[in-house]
Amino acid sequence: MENKFKELRKLYEEVAAINSANGVLQWDQQVYMPSGGAGARARSIGALEEIAHRKFTSPEAGRLIAQTYDWAQGKGHDSFEAGYLRAIKRDYDKAVKLPSEFVAELSRETSLGIEAWTKAKKGSDFSVFSPNLEKLLDLNIRKAELLGFEESPYDALLDLYEPGLKKSSLETLFSKLATGLKPIIKEISSRKELVSNALLKGNFDEDTQLKLVNEITAALGYDFRRGRQDRSAHPMTCDFSIDDVRITTRTCRDYIGTSLYGSIHECGHALYAQNMAPEFEFTPLAGGASLGVHESQSRLWENIIGRSEPFCRWLLPMLDKHFPGNFDNASPEELYKAVNLAEPSLVRVEADEVTYNLHIMLRFELETLLLEKKLMVKDAPELWNEKMREYFGITPKNDAQGVLQDIHWALGMLGYFPTYAIGNLLSAQLFNKLSSEIPGAEALIEKGDFKPVLDWLAKNIHTHGRKYLPEELVKKAVGSELKVEPFLEYIRNKYSKIYGFDSNCAGSQKSEFRSQNKNTGNNKVSPF
Amino acid sequence: MENKFKELRKLYEEVAAINSANGVLQWDQQVYMPSGGAGARARSIGALEEIAHRKFTSPEAGRLIAQTYDWAQGKGHDSFEAGYLRAIKRDYDKAVKLPSEFVAELSRETSLGIEAWTKAKKGSDFSVFSPNLEKLLDLNIRKAELLGFEESPYDALLDLYEPGLKKSSLETLFSKLATGLKPIIKEISSRKELVSNALLKGNFDEDTQLKLVNEITAALGYDFRRGRQDRSAHPMTCDFSIDDVRITTRTCRDYIGTSLYGSIHECGHALYAQNMAPEFEFTPLAGGASLGVHESQSRLWENIIGRSEPFCRWLLPMLDKHFPGNFDNASPEELYKAVNLAEPSLVRVEADEVTYNLHIMLRFELETLLLEKKLMVKDAPELWNEKMREYFGITPKNDAQGVLQDIHWALGMLGYFPTYAIGNLLSAQLFNKLSSEIPGAEALIEKGDFKPVLDWLAKNIHTHGRKYLPEELVKKAVGSELKVEPFLEYIRNKYSKIYGFDSNCAGSQKSEFRSQNKNTGNNKVSPF
Repeated sequence: MENKFKELRKLYEEVAAINSANGVLQWDQQVYMPSGGAGARARSIGALEEIAHRKFTSPEAGRLIAQTYDWAQGKGHDSFEAGYLRAIKRDYDKAVKLPSEFVAELSRETSLGIEAWTKAKKGSDFSVFSPNLEKLLDLNIRKAELLGFEESPYDALLDLYEPGLKKSSLETLFSKLATGLKPIIKEISSRKELVSNALLKGNFDEDTQLKLVNEITAALGYDFRRGRQDRSAHPMTCDFSIDDVRITTRTCRDYIGTSLYGSIHECGHALYAQNMAPEFEFTPLAGGASLGVHESQSRLWENIIGRSEPFCRWLLPMLDKHFPGNFDNASPEELYKAVNLAEPSLVRVEADEVTYNLHIMLRFELETLLLEKKLMVKDAPELWNEKMREYFGITPKNDAQGVLQDIHWALGMLGYFPTYAIGNLLSAQLFNKLSSEIPGAEALIEKGDFKPVLDWLAKNIHTHGRKYLPEELVKKAVGSELKVEPFLEYIRNKYSKIYGFDSNCAGSQKSEFRSQNKNTGNNKVSPF
Repeated sequence: MENKFKELRKLYEEVAAINSANGVLQWDQQVYMPSGGAGARARSIGALEEIAHRKFTSPEAGRLIAQTYDWAQGKGHDSFEAGYLRAIKRDYDKAVKLPSEFVAELSRETSLGIEAWTKAKKGSDFSVFSPNLEKLLDLNIRKAELLGFEESPYDALLDLYEPGLKKSSLETLFSKLATGLKPIIKEISSRKELVSNALLKGNFDEDTQLKLVNEITAALGYDFRRGRQDRSAHPMTCDFSIDDVRITTRTCRDYIGTSLYGSIHECGHALYAQNMAPEFEFTPLAGGASLGVHESQSRLWENIIGRSEPFCRWLLPMLDKHFPGNFDNASPEELYKAVNLAEPSLVRVEADEVTYNLHIMLRFELETLLLEKKLMVKDAPELWNEKMREYFGITPKNDAQGVLQDIHWALGMLGYFPTYAIGNLLSAQLFNKLSSEIPGAEALIEKGDFKPVLDWLAKNIHTHGRKYLPEELVKKAVGSELKVEPFLEYIRNKYSKIYGFDSNCAGSQKSEFRSQNKNTGNNKVSPF
């Protein structure tokens, strides 16, 4: 049986080597490829994807998985072998359910979708994209049917990004979240004049910005011997290996916030990828437990740590060093306020941590309705705008700023958006837990000593890779299931102070589940 | 039959797509990969190589080649189909002659060889590397036997890099070359004090050097929309596609010559790759006709054009613009002398265009003796040093500067060195021909108008890719076979003026084949 397992590992290593190669091609495509290279690159990426898929879904692979599964589980739930087989079986079962003709059709329609979406967004004309969205919806419904589901086709799609999570659980979480957030947003909206981010605006040399964020991410624990940071139009993290995890950032000359927090965000993802157990290299155990768990890492560093008061006290001298003049008379308190400006806005990717989740909920509501055929594609723009008014009290002035703003649906990715919100919720739970276990976490952060925090995350999250399903991993790490209240308490506490309103008035009384959460003892309010 | 050909093209396109991907991995490895990524990268590159080899040598490929070969030749010698089948058959026949176990063994021994060579060179201790060289020699002899040859095993290896060329022809060429060069080198050595390259020494900001060489290569015709230039430890050209051809350069803060001429050299290679017929993309016709023909392009731009007087007149204001102060009082004549300093030296990669070929001949002599078992590995260092004294009148002070200086043998590449010399010879023939067909070539170069030269090369060399064997291509382009005398005349003429000696004394009378060459009418002396 050992030998069969070795055979399986060898087969998978080739798949992993090809996927790793494809990662390099995609990184290069975004970062350094000259425009002329696009055609050849698409062909290379396509060829490698096909080869990896063919190899991974071969009968040989299926046979080896079936033969070794029980033997591996016999080694104990926490063993490398058991985790390996659970992960590969999950991936294999999904992969073989999608016939290659279907995969090819989806890929073709996605290319057309992106093209149409790009054009539609540019001209702010939803009708240019709507026939493609119809087609992509149909394909996603077929995909869900091929993968199989019990209650909603949405469950099958969500499971691709967030294994084990169901639409019904999301609805419960999101309803609590909306109830909690709406009054806070109302309070903030009525006090706009109290916070400004003018401190972050100015004329910032872009090479110097890169130096600054290199210094910051190195301080957070990002290992530059096993990674690098470059500029790209869209910030991203790419991992080709546990020992080659790269991040990119976007610099804006007139606003330092973009590179600063974009970089810390990607660094959070990268720390996850760099701190997997080394023996997971080129196995199905390498990677994040889910997109939501991955996002919890980026959000924890970006927002809960990166936008905290102690972090701002550490950050200010650093900003001052790289941009002498720009921060001369600034206090850490001013910086803290500037990086925490919150306001209802039209565009998700520019949203602050208070309003961000409502953007997600809006998308979740629309895509479930679309998938369940309860909303016609042609009516999507109007419903989008209605929801914007309901949640934020603002209306997009056109579809480019409304229903057309995100690329996800054009990429054929329905069920993806909620993972951003999962990440936000989990980040608060994780931070509560780790700060209860690290004495003086706040003081350490103020000193720029991030090692204890990183070590805690590495031990409780990173090292496990894909060994456990998110639910089990979360339970192991924070002692409870995924919850809304820790995040709400964090937001309520922080923003009531920044914007000067009574945290009791901002909905905390309306939250029925608060006392219930209190009982678990895992609902400590974030210390800063 | 059309359909069979389509099938073959589809099969090969997948091989080409994988090879293109592998090119990106290798470029990244040299240019941007963090050191930690080395392990995963080696595995990815190995996996892709194996997949491409397996696919290319499949019985399916062999069957399709056999079925379509005659049909394709029936389309006419110059047709796309005929060229396609000639090229793929040549590659396929070679590839299937080497069993995969042999390829794997050679690859393993090469890895060990590089490791040992690195250590040996560092400690300047040949004995550390000699057992590996023995093994690599044996494998190369076996390789030659597997590939097949008539006279010498060297022919089989040489054919991998320079299709159609034989050791015996090389011996004839090299003997003429040595006879012609030795007296010139003697004249130069006795006039060392007349030329200095002090003008190229100083303190040159390395980012500015990159800007300078970007401007120069763009002026030569390198298309940055389909390429880019970066820095790396070893300058190189990588083509992933006709539309994605990248070059790298090495900058030295205290000497501008390295980046300047390294860049022009690589640009010469890149212009070849960027100007293939577009329909050759992802076919066996993409690529250079041989390594020698490729080198003729880099050498033509680097030396014959780049180190000419009119080029120096164009270059000087450019240097002055980027490095104000460094070239204040310099004249074009001074620059011309500085970039043409020639002297016997120990290290091939630093050698000037006069002495360079003797370095090649020395290696050729040694590797043929080794392969034919006429020289024991242990005696190689001593013979190397003897030849150095014979050719240059100098002795390496250790093996690191002697027999251990090049990586080629450690890479298992015997038969490779002569292609550098072929390139030098051919570059002179090409320049004579193109300047006889472009009116006022010298004046155009002085103006920085390189387009007519590039167009001529594109039409006569680049566009043909691998359609013709080097011999046929050379005949088409210059009207004769590969010759020594045009190069010798170019060197004799140029350096007798620079160093002030009588060109008749420097061996031109000794050259028996001169009058013979004159008869062809293709032996015009380079105009500058």
